[in-house]
Amino acid sequence: MSNTKPIRLGMVGGGNDAFIGAVHRIASRIDGQFQLTAGALSSTPEKSMASGAALGLDPDRTYEDFKAMAIREARLKDGIEAVAIVTPNHMHYPVAREFLKRGIHVICDKPLTSTLADAKKLVKAAESSDALFILTHNYTGYPMVRQAREMIANGDLGDIRVVQAEYPQDWLTEPEDNKQAEWRTDPARSGAGGSVGDIGTHAFNLLSFVTGLQTEVLSADLQSFVPGRRLDDNAHVMLRFEGGARGMLWCSQVAPGNENGLRLRVYGAKGGLEWEQEDPNKLWYTPFGEAKRLITRGGAGAGEAANRVSRTPGGHPEGYLEGFANIYSEAALAIRAKQEGIELPAEVVFPTVQDGLIGVQFIQACVNSSNRNSAWVSL
Amino acid sequence: MSNTKPIRLGMVGGGNDAFIGAVHRIASRIDGQFQLTAGALSSTPEKSMASGAALGLDPDRTYEDFKAMAIREARLKDGIEAVAIVTPNHMHYPVAREFLKRGIHVICDKPLTSTLADAKKLVKAAESSDALFILTHNYTGYPMVRQAREMIANGDLGDIRVVQAEYPQDWLTEPEDNKQAEWRTDPARSGAGGSVGDIGTHAFNLLSFVTGLQTEVLSADLQSFVPGRRLDDNAHVMLRFEGGARGMLWCSQVAPGNENGLRLRVYGAKGGLEWEQEDPNKLWYTPFGEAKRLITRGGAGAGEAANRVSRTPGGHPEGYLEGFANIYSEAALAIRAKQEGIELPAEVVFPTVQDGLIGVQFIQACVNSSNRNSAWVSL
Amino acid sequence: MSNTKPIRLGMVGGGNDAFIGAVHRIASRIDGQFQLTAGALSSTPEKSMASGAALGLDPDRTYEDFKAMAIREARLKDGIEAVAIVTPNHMHYPVAREFLKRGIHVICDKPLTSTLADAKKLVKAAESSDALFILTHNYTGYPMVRQAREMIANGDLGDIRVVQAEYPQDWLTEPEDNKQAEWRTDPARSGAGGSVGDIGTHAFNLLSFVTGLQTEVLSADLQSFVPGRRLDDNAHVMLRFEGGARGMLWCSQVAPGNENGLRLRVYGAKGGLEWEQEDPNKLWYTPFGEAKRLITRGGAGAGEAANRVSRTPGGHPEGYLEGFANIYSEAALAIRAKQEGIELPAEVVFPTVQDGLIGVQFIQACVNSSNRNSAWVSL
Amino acid sequence: MSNTKPIRLGMVGGGNDAFIGAVHRIASRIDGQFQLTAGALSSTPEKSMASGAALGLDPDRTYEDFKAMAIREARLKDGIEAVAIVTPNHMHYPVAREFLKRGIHVICDKPLTSTLADAKKLVKAAESSDALFILTHNYTGYPMVRQAREMIANGDLGDIRVVQAEYPQDWLTEPEDNKQAEWRTDPARSGAGGSVGDIGTHAFNLLSFVTGLQTEVLSADLQSFVPGRRLDDNAHVMLRFEGGARGMLWCSQVAPGNENGLRLRVYGAKGGLEWEQEDPNKLWYTPFGEAKRLITRGGAGAGEAANRVSRTPGGHPEGYLEGFANIYSEAALAIRAKQEGIELPAEVVFPTVQDGLIGVQFIQACVNSSNRNSAWVSL
Repeated sequence: MSNTKPIRLGMVGGGNDAFIGAVHRIASRIDGQFQLTAGALSSTPEKSMASGAALGLDPDRTYEDFKAMAIREARLKDGIEAVAIVTPNHMHYPVAREFLKRGIHVICDKPLTSTLADAKKLVKAAESSDALFILTHNYTGYPMVRQAREMIANGDLGDIRVVQAEYPQDWLTEPEDNKQAEWRTDPARSGAGGSVGDIGTHAFNLLSFVTGLQTEVLSADLQSFVPGRRLDDNAHVMLRFEGGARGMLWCSQVAPGNENGLRLRVYGAKGGLEWEQEDPNKLWYTPFGEAKRLITRGGAGAGEAANRVSRTPGGHPEGYLEGFANIYSEAALAIRAKQEGIELPAEVVFPTVQDGLIGVQFIQACVNSSNRNSAWVSL
Repeated sequence: MSNTKPIRLGMVGGGNDAFIGAVHRIASRIDGQFQLTAGALSSTPEKSMASGAALGLDPDRTYEDFKAMAIREARLKDGIEAVAIVTPNHMHYPVAREFLKRGIHVICDKPLTSTLADAKKLVKAAESSDALFILTHNYTGYPMVRQAREMIANGDLGDIRVVQAEYPQDWLTEPEDNKQAEWRTDPARSGAGGSVGDIGTHAFNLLSFVTGLQTEVLSADLQSFVPGRRLDDNAHVMLRFEGGARGMLWCSQVAPGNENGLRLRVYGAKGGLEWEQEDPNKLWYTPFGEAKRLITRGGAGAGEAANRVSRTPGGHPEGYLEGFANIYSEAALAIRAKQEGIELPAEVVFPTVQDGLIGVQFIQACVNSSNRNSAWVSL
Repeated sequence: MSNTKPIRLGMVGGGNDAFIGAVHRIASRIDGQFQLTAGALSSTPEKSMASGAALGLDPDRTYEDFKAMAIREARLKDGIEAVAIVTPNHMHYPVAREFLKRGIHVICDKPLTSTLADAKKLVKAAESSDALFILTHNYTGYPMVRQAREMIANGDLGDIRVVQAEYPQDWLTEPEDNKQAEWRTDPARSGAGGSVGDIGTHAFNLLSFVTGLQTEVLSADLQSFVPGRRLDDNAHVMLRFEGGARGMLWCSQVAPGNENGLRLRVYGAKGGLEWEQEDPNKLWYTPFGEAKRLITRGGAGAGEAANRVSRTPGGHPEGYLEGFANIYSEAALAIRAKQEGIELPAEVVFPTVQDGLIGVQFIQACVNSSNRNSAWVSL
Repeated sequence: MSNTKPIRLGMVGGGNDAFIGAVHRIASRIDGQFQLTAGALSSTPEKSMASGAALGLDPDRTYEDFKAMAIREARLKDGIEAVAIVTPNHMHYPVAREFLKRGIHVICDKPLTSTLADAKKLVKAAESSDALFILTHNYTGYPMVRQAREMIANGDLGDIRVVQAEYPQDWLTEPEDNKQAEWRTDPARSGAGGSVGDIGTHAFNLLSFVTGLQTEVLSADLQSFVPGRRLDDNAHVMLRFEGGARGMLWCSQVAPGNENGLRLRVYGAKGGLEWEQEDPNKLWYTPFGEAKRLITRGGAGAGEAANRVSRTPGGHPEGYLEGFANIYSEAALAIRAKQEGIELPAEVVFPTVQDGLIGVQFIQACVNSSNRNSAWVSL
């Protein structure tokens, strides 16, 4: 793939001081598959232009407004081929719509939208477009997550019985005082879920991706521990899956000592798997009745699904940015296959608009269940 | 304390091949405070006598029947002062009653009883007896558990918000085929709870002991994954505490790769604590906004509550048996204070019959909630 | 073994405030194989009597002087059968001699003696006695250490190539100010080695026990970092073994953050093993070209050599005291076999007076090499 | 820095199938500071052209020969500004010379050269050139390594006493059978050191960078365990530093279970630091007499030196490639400062040609010492 020209990429959001925009830009560069070419980097025109200049963007390709960018770039001969949407959640749908309807591929941050209504509209917009929609549930890009998924699909664990997922953080332990926190705790921009929307969806997407299980119903207990906070900052969820497996999910933004403690444990009739995001190059495999085994990225025991998204030999740790870059590189493969009219190989996987819809359904179900005193509700 | 004669101890249950009886015997010996003097070690007379002989017990003090032992030992001038009850759960009450009413102190394995009715009767029996009742929720004997409790009582964590407790095992992943498994999966001997009774109570007792929180209501989802199993082998529980804190509890006997994975994590407005039973000499303390700290048993940062139940300097790991022995040594202090009519110092703590009652209420509440589709039920 | 009467044990040293004496007493009690019956617990008569009283010893069996104790106990019908020697190093030989020549079995703390001359005399004294001599290099009692030894003997690692042993502590980082430190840094009582004698010998004994390798020559660089200290508090050693394997050994008492960081790593042509004293229930086994495996005490993968010295199922951590107790229980088996004139089963192993001699040779070789600018010297 | 045009980068070596060339290319892209523009990617002209095509290089800028590339690129108006040298060691000097003398900045893989004579010539070539020379001892780019260095410079550890460095691998446990292994075990291309040159230099550079200590003398014992191997595959080294500190260094390519186990431990009079390359976002800080602290990249306790080379908040692990990219980004800062004639801020640090010379002196000293039966030799 490396002998082709980089894909021309635009970006909406991600101006100076934004966290996730910078992450998307690094992720898009790591494998050399994208070239940032245009941007509408802020909702404030002045900040948008300043951010473009700071990034070295051609001023002619720096836009004050995402719609203007969509219209003009779609007409340019060398206009952007794809756009990264890294705005607050409530803007995902209106922005994505403009690009999708002009045939520009969309790479969008999670959760899909801030409301279930928007999510459904976005699914339609994506389905009626020729362009691709890729959702950056980035943790699915980690090689050892791919390894876990492959092992479960191969039946190494037997029938899955129990799933334990968690994502504790601590950055909202005290009342929020920065920009990142501000919009994430504002229902108008973030949606109905606080921690459950920002990180609970990551945990839910990860468990769904790895196990392949469909969630039937869930029972949730959401809390807002910090006085005055309008959205949940801690959530306890029990899950029932099709086929009889059960699970628990905990997410928190008020658990001191936890940075990004995303962790997944899966147990079946024949064995178990355990993985932690903060130590992502390792996967514990525990076949029942045998000594525990530690599978390492690039090491003995790692299979094809992991190896195809690894860059370095074992023991050279790959991290968050490389995992994120894997989503971008899968996107590049998909975009080029689409452009060239060839079939995408089955091993190329990325989160889709449908995964995004399920994620928003998960958020809404958690909020609904909690409002109904933790009644079981379906997704 | 060491210059006194050991307390004469009897034992009911714990014959050849029993697991927990041997543990009690070692625990009673470690600090030299008890001398095993009599026993009714099995429900089968022959096995009882053979087990006594194997342990080097005087045949004259080896009984075929626990009631005969209670009657005769109470009359002997040098009869036992205390009895350890290590039978299956359903026998705890009938055995304890016989000794309590004769003024013999009781050290009893957990859970308190197999039914809530028995638990209430045992509370009455203990309250109307001059003898002490000590329940071996042994994990409360670990020095770092004492440390955690002291720190929370001192307010180091601020108001507690979130509690995560878990106790996964894997030994019942496949259909049971040994004696230990057999009675534990039999409702008549084990009680209404399977995993929730055997190990869920440990996790629940531990979180209650460490945090001091009172549980108001819980919502539980119990499963029996192994075909034909009559009791739960996996349980998911959500907890709400007085004062507003929330918690989750997971216990499982079907999680391959987990041996005795008891783990407690507590988060408050000012910091967090994390402890794992399989690495018991370490306690993570995470004050919000500071680097994480690892407090070690016997090391810098360990306080008085931990140090008084430690035997060796830091870095010489103490384990399960020493933690168990701490319950026995607390019992010895209490028994001697009772015998001598002096007040027990406040720092001497051990699980009581009341703790046992709450434990059985916890088991029953889990079963009731699960039977009512995870409705919130009070303890 | 449990149906026999406990062995009557005396103790020399181990008075109030001594560290290792208390450890020996607990270790002797854990399996119920010994009964402390007599003692000469201090070099000061008054303190000796006070310590005996504190331990509940019969005043008639509490001695002001070890020689008086040896003479009288040897004549008593129910005199001690074995004696534990827990004095400073320079007293090991004179004390052991008195008991050995009267046929009383000796269980002696390490290192064997404070001088090589004494060590050689003690070997002779032991060889010419009917009594047994057991040296408490206690780390050889850990089940996972036995496991490692068994696996290497079985050839699981292939030919051994590289051995890395270390034992860092930090308690002497600053000038010593307590009794434990005082004699350990005094050449007259400790011998020629400081850290190398106190803990370097443990690391050396452990690597020798596990690998079975004979050390040919070593090159050492010893330092005394704390001003005014007369013995080494840090030592770097390179080792060459018969057959071509090589090793390194580091011991330190001035490495802040290390409590008792004894660690052994062994690599052969087919695989490796790694073990740490502070996490003693786990053993890493790394067959070349396969995923790493974690063998746990009592768990899958643990073999007969480990299981016979384990007391509890996997996941109930056993620690330092249980490992130490295993040396005592091996001693009890050996003493009873001796008393009954039966052959000791091959699986019963404990450190001998010969191991002790090699340990003193190791200390002396380290000192000699360091004095000769790290020249290679033979043991 | 981000609003400037990327620096035009050439590459020598790094053709198809090379490991380190691909790493350099990713590292150069991560922060968007470099654009690969030209290459002489192989010593074989055909392979060189094929590799260039595979990378999407302009055929006009793909060279069959590094000298031709140096000559022509130096003349081009938009010729390369810097060159990355990623050949086997013996080619570092001849290649670097050609670019240095034409004023093209050099970013060169380690070790500096295959011989000490070449190293000295390269130092002269660099000193007499206007161009910069940056050596990719990439581990110095890790944020937590920078943190350690800053803390030691700040005196947080007090006077340094003991340094323990190690770098075990296992990939050469069996006779080599791949291209990477082949040249690394060939003295003509690798130099006099095997493991000591390939990874021992990394460990040595790391300890020197972090502690600031100058090595006075060393004593080394080198082995070649695999039959027929011409260079060492395991090395034991004792170190003496100016000022009295002492150290040990172990490197191995035959230690099964170790991937890239680079680890550094430093102990001073006031505290210690411990860091492992395979878990690079964490740094243990152990002030004497206090609880151990875990400082995390991006977390509480991380200082300015670490934060300026971090890209993401704590808990999003950064790895090997980001650490490597930090060297490239420091190089970019230095190159631009040079081009613009401004002074380089003191916080910008990267390994220099002098560090490279010391590294080759280290290799040669190890070989010489080992050849002289581990005599102490100066660097």
